[in-house]
Amino acid sequence: MTYCLGLRLNAGMVFVSDSRTNAGVDFISAYRKCFVFDQAEDRIIVILTAGNLAITQSVISLLEDRAEGGDPKRSLYAAPSMFEIARIVGNTLREVHAEDAESLRQHNTEFNATMIVGGQIRGRRMRMFNVYAAGNFIEAGEDTPYLQIGETKYGKPIIERVVTMDTPLVEAAKCALVSFDSTIKSNLSVAPPLDMVIVPTDSLKAQVRWRITEDDPYFLDIRRRWGEGLRSLFVNLPDPAAVVGGLDGLS
Amino acid sequence: MTYCLGLRLNAGMVFVSDSRTNAGVDFISAYRKCFVFDQAEDRIIVILTAGNLAITQSVISLLEDRAEGGDPKRSLYAAPSMFEIARIVGNTLREVHAEDAESLRQHNTEFNATMIVGGQIRGRRMRMFNVYAAGNFIEAGEDTPYLQIGETKYGKPIIERVVTMDTPLVEAAKCALVSFDSTIKSNLSVAPPLDMVIVPTDSLKAQVRWRITEDDPYFLDIRRRWGEGLRSLFVNLPDPAAVVGGLDGLS
Repeated sequence: MTYCLGLRLNAGMVFVSDSRTNAGVDFISAYRKCFVFDQAEDRIIVILTAGNLAITQSVISLLEDRAEGGDPKRSLYAAPSMFEIARIVGNTLREVHAEDAESLRQHNTEFNATMIVGGQIRGRRMRMFNVYAAGNFIEAGEDTPYLQIGETKYGKPIIERVVTMDTPLVEAAKCALVSFDSTIKSNLSVAPPLDMVIVPTDSLKAQVRWRITEDDPYFLDIRRRWGEGLRSLFVNLPDPAAVVGGLDGLS
Repeated sequence: MTYCLGLRLNAGMVFVSDSRTNAGVDFISAYRKCFVFDQAEDRIIVILTAGNLAITQSVISLLEDRAEGGDPKRSLYAAPSMFEIARIVGNTLREVHAEDAESLRQHNTEFNATMIVGGQIRGRRMRMFNVYAAGNFIEAGEDTPYLQIGETKYGKPIIERVVTMDTPLVEAAKCALVSFDSTIKSNLSVAPPLDMVIVPTDSLKAQVRWRITEDDPYFLDIRRRWGEGLRSLFVNLPDPAAVVGGLDGLS
């Protein structure tokens, strides 16, 4: 599995991915799932990947090879808009699908890959898309200013409780780490190191690139405080014994 | 979907189920998914159900019809052990499968049903099982003293952080409600009224039977306190700005 999260806020974008990959529980390793394409002063694009590693690596390799080519239908650096960039990523996924899907099927392996693609081109607005295995995509919006791929459930509640379009980037980064803590705690197939990239609006650059290891003191500190805080919050909730018959006197 | 939770602790057992059922998002209704079989002074058995409602209702009807029959291989009241009771439930699921599965398949519907079966027979120890659609089952144990079926992910983290074999029943009941709050908040297909049954060890009876409606004052109160407490806990976590370059001065 994998967990990747993209937040698209008024102040900018926050991207976080884990790095655990596994082919069965007996073959676990770490691979980067966060890729930054930036052309100074002109554009920045960040791609987070989930799913079959052979597929997502193929897509990223093709995108890298073609980035410098200048073809606006194939190059992330030549495309005129973020929408066109999402289409290029989707079409590249379709290309790999056309190449690999039948062979995968013969080995009873599903063609499985999704990507979060976010960025900004000079003079245009920031946009963030979730590109599905079929190459189609949706965009994050005002009402749901975040996208998740992979193991999405454990980390979703805190985002829903905290994040709005107006959340500052520093707070969003903190929320992302709490979201990853919940996911890492409940799903063995999501694990550090994490990669965090922060792109402030109109900066056209990755202001923060932070690789967060398992023993990162800040990450350890908020994991401990969050765990202790949750337990203490729980202990201080009122007892149901006062409100429902039969509970009184139960040990 | 559905969410059902069973806690099997030293002090006794806590069972909670929601009551939402849906056949598509345009057909939503409420059905009980918690069934108590008790024979005063001799035994108590509680069954929680998830999955296709036609299947689980058939199983419960067959179990009810046969409970009084006295056949130790088919009657929940005549079976000599909780293990045998789990086998009876599993075999009844297989019986319904033999009857219905092929027709369901022709309508592209999966045979989908799981049950939590817990209870105690006089003089024996409490046991709790998760019975799968195939009729096989696992038992809750010391290391994982709880079982979940249906939408299990959103409600799991708080249980893992709080519940051990030694958790008192009142605290376990509170934890179950927080677990349901998280699930209800994140998954529209899980909803009140909830049914809670509490069976203290060696009591052989349902000491608490509590139907918790959407506007239950206690449930509303802990939902509000939990939500506010989480946000305040989050706000008070230290900022990452102090520890990673580039975050300083970001809005």
